[in-house]
Amino acid sequence: MIVTTETKQTVKEPKITLVGAGPGDAELITIKGMKALQTADVVLYDALINEDLLSFAPAHAHKVYVGKRSGDHSYSQEAVNQLMVDYAINYGHVVRLKGGDPFVFGRGFEELDHAASYSIPAEVIPGISSSIGVPGLQQIPVTHRGLSESFWVITGTTTNGKISNDIYAAAQSKATVVILMGLHKLAEIAEIFKAQGKHRLPVALIQSGSTVNEKVVVGIVNTIVELAEENKVKAPAMMVFGDVVSLHPKFQPIREFYDILAQE
Amino acid sequence: MIVTTETKQTVKEPKITLVGAGPGDAELITIKGMKALQTADVVLYDALINEDLLSFAPAHAHKVYVGKRSGDHSYSQEAVNQLMVDYAINYGHVVRLKGGDPFVFGRGFEELDHAASYSIPAEVIPGISSSIGVPGLQQIPVTHRGLSESFWVITGTTTNGKISNDIYAAAQSKATVVILMGLHKLAEIAEIFKAQGKHRLPVALIQSGSTVNEKVVVGIVNTIVELAEENKVKAPAMMVFGDVVSLHPKFQPIREFYDILAQE
Repeated sequence: MIVTTETKQTVKEPKITLVGAGPGDAELITIKGMKALQTADVVLYDALINEDLLSFAPAHAHKVYVGKRSGDHSYSQEAVNQLMVDYAINYGHVVRLKGGDPFVFGRGFEELDHAASYSIPAEVIPGISSSIGVPGLQQIPVTHRGLSESFWVITGTTTNGKISNDIYAAAQSKATVVILMGLHKLAEIAEIFKAQGKHRLPVALIQSGSTVNEKVVVGIVNTIVELAEENKVKAPAMMVFGDVVSLHPKFQPIREFYDILAQE
Repeated sequence: MIVTTETKQTVKEPKITLVGAGPGDAELITIKGMKALQTADVVLYDALINEDLLSFAPAHAHKVYVGKRSGDHSYSQEAVNQLMVDYAINYGHVVRLKGGDPFVFGRGFEELDHAASYSIPAEVIPGISSSIGVPGLQQIPVTHRGLSESFWVITGTTTNGKISNDIYAAAQSKATVVILMGLHKLAEIAEIFKAQGKHRLPVALIQSGSTVNEKVVVGIVNTIVELAEENKVKAPAMMVFGDVVSLHPKFQPIREFYDILAQE
């Protein structure tokens, strides 16, 4: 009797899913994002992704770190785009796991566009953006009746290394202003708000939101740079400028000192 | 032999969890939100909540609709606050299930504040806000290199029924402008953008995002009111004003007609 061993080559259709991982806590991914991971053949994941999320992917799936962090050896965006497509063609379903939401300063559209140029079907699964979720976990609402009818989310790190002009406009507005990835520009940004006479506008800095390393510092525009140094706030950290910060319990003594009124 | 039936009165500690349900698709809730539902004794849920989410709650849990929809008999915010506290005191863990994220025009902080006034511990679990997630599912990125360094989210429905002043400021900015709950003000809002000379700014209207009833209409400021009528767009719908809308596939013929350039 001759036994033939047949190697089944399963030819998988290439497919790419951009998944927002949320701000850090692994349980802040969506059910849909988790299910995408469960059917992944390859996971390409960024720096700041909670590695617990990788355990949702099957054991056979390739887990590839493509993170970018200052000082790291890192993949360029072009290299990530190409890796993503190569893996999809060779292995099937690639989950591109991105911090927060894929479209909030995540360069997600560039990845979609690259997939489209190879006619690889691509889907997007939103994630909790730090811009809303991280203040929310601190019980700082980005909007609140009587204090804020809108919020404006801006990157502190633009392509050319300069401060976004949008921050100058935002400092003039009544919106809650949320700035991501701008801690190294904090002193400059505080000056922009001072130039608008907003010396006493409440400010929160939140480092590593939703993780065990979370740290929150609240103050006002005039004091925030000094507070950041005293408290050794480090990146990744976000800033929230706006009256809504006065609702945070830590703001109570500041309010009493400066006579800044929070809504009851 | 005497059989005594002992009724065990489990005295549960009152506790409130504000959970963001996301934009509509039940799988866009977070794992953490789902787990909160699994331990709920009471679920208080809004209009526009996907009722499939209620099946995560135990069979014994009370599921109470407290939705507000124009024309409905509805609970006032004060009544919801009080119900929430009463249920927590009488039954234990109340999950307050809110559309999108609890703090994006959700009046979530008022509920937290009310819980605090009764010394009932309260936690917040963020949700996918429609403002980011719904355009994202349509593959419209709220930020994109070269097109937008920021996005500004505003309510179209303010307490006094007037258009928020923030919309006038936003129309002057370079931010992607996302307006929630403002469809009935579309014509007025389009005029505000025209007054800034932005007649050809791309606009998307997205109705019932992430659900089976999803409908998307794209155009420019000059044409969007007519397009909304032709396509019978109905609330709930959101608006996205900004160059990023030009990346949507449906915008291609408009671009050719008006010679508006999208980034490749």
